[in-house]
Amino acid sequence: MEINIERNILEANDRLAVDLADLFRTKSILCLNLMSSPGAGKTSLLERTLADLGGEFKMAVVEGDLQTDNDARRVAATGAQAVQINTEGGCHLDAGMVQKALAHIDLDGLDILFIENVGNLVCPAEFSLGEDHKVTLLSVTEGDDKPEKYPLMFSISSVALLNKVDLLPYVDFDLDKAARHAKALNKDIIVMPVSCRDGEGLGQWYDWLRKERKNKK
Amino acid sequence: MEINIERNILEANDRLAVDLADLFRTKSILCLNLMSSPGAGKTSLLERTLADLGGEFKMAVVEGDLQTDNDARRVAATGAQAVQINTEGGCHLDAGMVQKALAHIDLDGLDILFIENVGNLVCPAEFSLGEDHKVTLLSVTEGDDKPEKYPLMFSISSVALLNKVDLLPYVDFDLDKAARHAKALNKDIIVMPVSCRDGEGLGQWYDWLRKERKNKK
Repeated sequence: MEINIERNILEANDRLAVDLADLFRTKSILCLNLMSSPGAGKTSLLERTLADLGGEFKMAVVEGDLQTDNDARRVAATGAQAVQINTEGGCHLDAGMVQKALAHIDLDGLDILFIENVGNLVCPAEFSLGEDHKVTLLSVTEGDDKPEKYPLMFSISSVALLNKVDLLPYVDFDLDKAARHAKALNKDIIVMPVSCRDGEGLGQWYDWLRKERKNKK
Repeated sequence: MEINIERNILEANDRLAVDLADLFRTKSILCLNLMSSPGAGKTSLLERTLADLGGEFKMAVVEGDLQTDNDARRVAATGAQAVQINTEGGCHLDAGMVQKALAHIDLDGLDILFIENVGNLVCPAEFSLGEDHKVTLLSVTEGDDKPEKYPLMFSISSVALLNKVDLLPYVDFDLDKAARHAKALNKDIIVMPVSCRDGEGLGQWYDWLRKERKNKK
């Protein structure tokens, strides 16, 4: 009984997600679903990316949080369109929430839509939002054992950004070990060590965005 | 319909949690439910606490993770009894899982039982495990906005440990702001800045454990 209910919820979500994927295809919008633990740097990555690539691409952001519109305000400060979803305690975004948020975004001519999911390394992995790619951030302060301990998230992500490498001198984190565990779960995952604080490694992220943007046209 | 299902699941959990609370009362065991984002330092806190207070108290640990028995092995290395629960993807522990795990722990003469929940700042907050207190850890690397953004967890916790203060020189984290937001949600919450790496601030944590242990007798 419980398993059927869960399956029904996921199936209903997947049907809506297919509609979203169709919309993104029709409009030629590259859509990326950003996921991580709380405080791993999703909003900082967006602030950097929107500022650095603002001249190249038209970008917008759907922000998901339990409470507050702090992140939408941070992102809107870069000049990008930003819409906040408050889940009121809900642990993940679903396709229906994204569909409603899109009514507040001008999709015409949009190149890239970022969806910043609720900070949670578990539940968001189960819900497709019609995105082209899932992107996971892992802060080096969280420990190099996290791909092994939270395997679903890394199994289904196209990119794993290992963020806050500026803190590597002060924590025990083995970049090779984390990358090895992520690739054992998902041989195609692209692992990028970055620092959203000082910009280290973001060139590889921007090049990946350019390539994926081109593929979507 | 969906709301009723959720309520039924929570009510079934709460009934089991009452049984667990009765058991802990009968056996005079202080039970603490440790919760946080992934990598905030729950296992490190336990390693320190089990080593430093091993001469004073008989302690045991129930470890919750999606996958791996890494944490139970880390904790067992201190000599304490440790039982691993793997939720196989589940985002929180529930009272039924704890009940099953307790069959593998010798409860006689036990002073303190720690339950380390799944790394997740959202879902574990909804499920009582019969504990005397919920204890939340927040790493300073996660940002001082987290109490405001994840309010339920801080509303229901007796203690918030602000961990990794050894990294304060390298991150933007305002201890006063985080404490102020936590206390705005929960005026009784005790906020303790600590470093499980160098031991800073743990004296206050140990004194709190001694006091709560005494109250439970």
